[in-house]
Amino acid sequence: MAKWTKGDKLYEGKAKCIYSIPGQSDLLWVEYKDSLTAFNAQKKGTFQAKGQLNRNISSRIFQYMKEQGIDNHWLENVGTEDMICRKVTIIPLEVVVRNRLAGSTAKKFAIEEGKILERPLVEFYFKNDELGDPFLSDDQALMLKAAKSRDELDELRAQALRCNLSLLKFFGELGIELVDFKLEFGFDKNNRILLADEISPDCCRLWDKKTGEKLDKDRFRRDLGKVEESYLDVWNRIKARWGEVK
Amino acid sequence: MAKWTKGDKLYEGKAKCIYSIPGQSDLLWVEYKDSLTAFNAQKKGTFQAKGQLNRNISSRIFQYMKEQGIDNHWLENVGTEDMICRKVTIIPLEVVVRNRLAGSTAKKFAIEEGKILERPLVEFYFKNDELGDPFLSDDQALMLKAAKSRDELDELRAQALRCNLSLLKFFGELGIELVDFKLEFGFDKNNRILLADEISPDCCRLWDKKTGEKLDKDRFRRDLGKVEESYLDVWNRIKARWGEVK
Repeated sequence: MAKWTKGDKLYEGKAKCIYSIPGQSDLLWVEYKDSLTAFNAQKKGTFQAKGQLNRNISSRIFQYMKEQGIDNHWLENVGTEDMICRKVTIIPLEVVVRNRLAGSTAKKFAIEEGKILERPLVEFYFKNDELGDPFLSDDQALMLKAAKSRDELDELRAQALRCNLSLLKFFGELGIELVDFKLEFGFDKNNRILLADEISPDCCRLWDKKTGEKLDKDRFRRDLGKVEESYLDVWNRIKARWGEVK
Repeated sequence: MAKWTKGDKLYEGKAKCIYSIPGQSDLLWVEYKDSLTAFNAQKKGTFQAKGQLNRNISSRIFQYMKEQGIDNHWLENVGTEDMICRKVTIIPLEVVVRNRLAGSTAKKFAIEEGKILERPLVEFYFKNDELGDPFLSDDQALMLKAAKSRDELDELRAQALRCNLSLLKFFGELGIELVDFKLEFGFDKNNRILLADEISPDCCRLWDKKTGEKLDKDRFRRDLGKVEESYLDVWNRIKARWGEVK
């Protein structure tokens, strides 16, 4: 008999579906989809193994982070594209950490893509598809009540920087440069801020350290081809160095 | 014999020219121009008395603020469109204070123009015409070295909020709602942060308290007509309540 049962669909996002688990009100069933979207879902794509690859990558990273003392919502994997997570109330801020400048911030300040930052930059974006997830300041986040206090924002920043340390080590040993990544956090039942969502090539910029080749969603965004191959490459490197989820 | 002599032109901006003053290395001669620009100077206009009106408005506000214990770069007026100011090294951040939401921030979050904020919102924009003065966070300002430290940004925020208190009283007694305004600060010769630039209908949103009529540069930006009349109205109200610069 299966340990968990997939219940009602609670939410369908661009890359994942969330289901309840009957009898387990503190847990959620997260299913990774094969779809790929960019530019606030104006561009859409898919490849067959994508859900599975991102589930595998994300869960192995979450497990690694736990081993490094960085708690998060991941509990265990089920099936091929699914994981069981602790339920959190998502904070409506996307927390971006940048080790090098790329994407929207490089463009905003007309700085060459790839510039190494003296120290990691943490940015907040307001999670709102209709508004296109706009960048915001601490004061604007408080105005919108996306966060309750300055302390909460400081805590998000500190947690994000600790995640960065862990992820730099994780990817560094795979010969991958962690350029930037997006995290989401939520409040658990004890009102503690907990890392949630996913960590995968969908929400990280990952460059091969030797060739500079992009191994992430920018291949899809910018029509560089070999999207599936790159996600698979990342997973193969993870398997070879860190193994699959135990 | 005139107390001050206008020296070399050091800088010409969109609304003001700055000249040296021979023998006075700590001072600057600031001349207000008749030109009006909007949308990063893509829209241009002019009216004859504009330089004079903005000089008069700005200097009376600066004098009022000094009386309220808020130091700033203004020293005294000369001629009809000119003022003598203490020289500062401008900090490349536009500091915006909002009491009600309007303009770019209202648009970014799709919030109705005029929404009253629970507490004043302070925002920083990177002073860079080529980039279109982009909005930025504290961390981005530090990354760009637009500010040297978090303390400097906190000091700017605190000074901006104190200016707000003073300006709310100044305009409130004229039957004018101070919606928002932009300030610039600089370092004086003692490395102290000092309020600089100008405070006029060019960089404030001023709404008539009874009618809601706009009395500021939005009349020009949005082609509402009566631009000159509105600037004159503001100056006439100031003269009637606070008098001209003494």
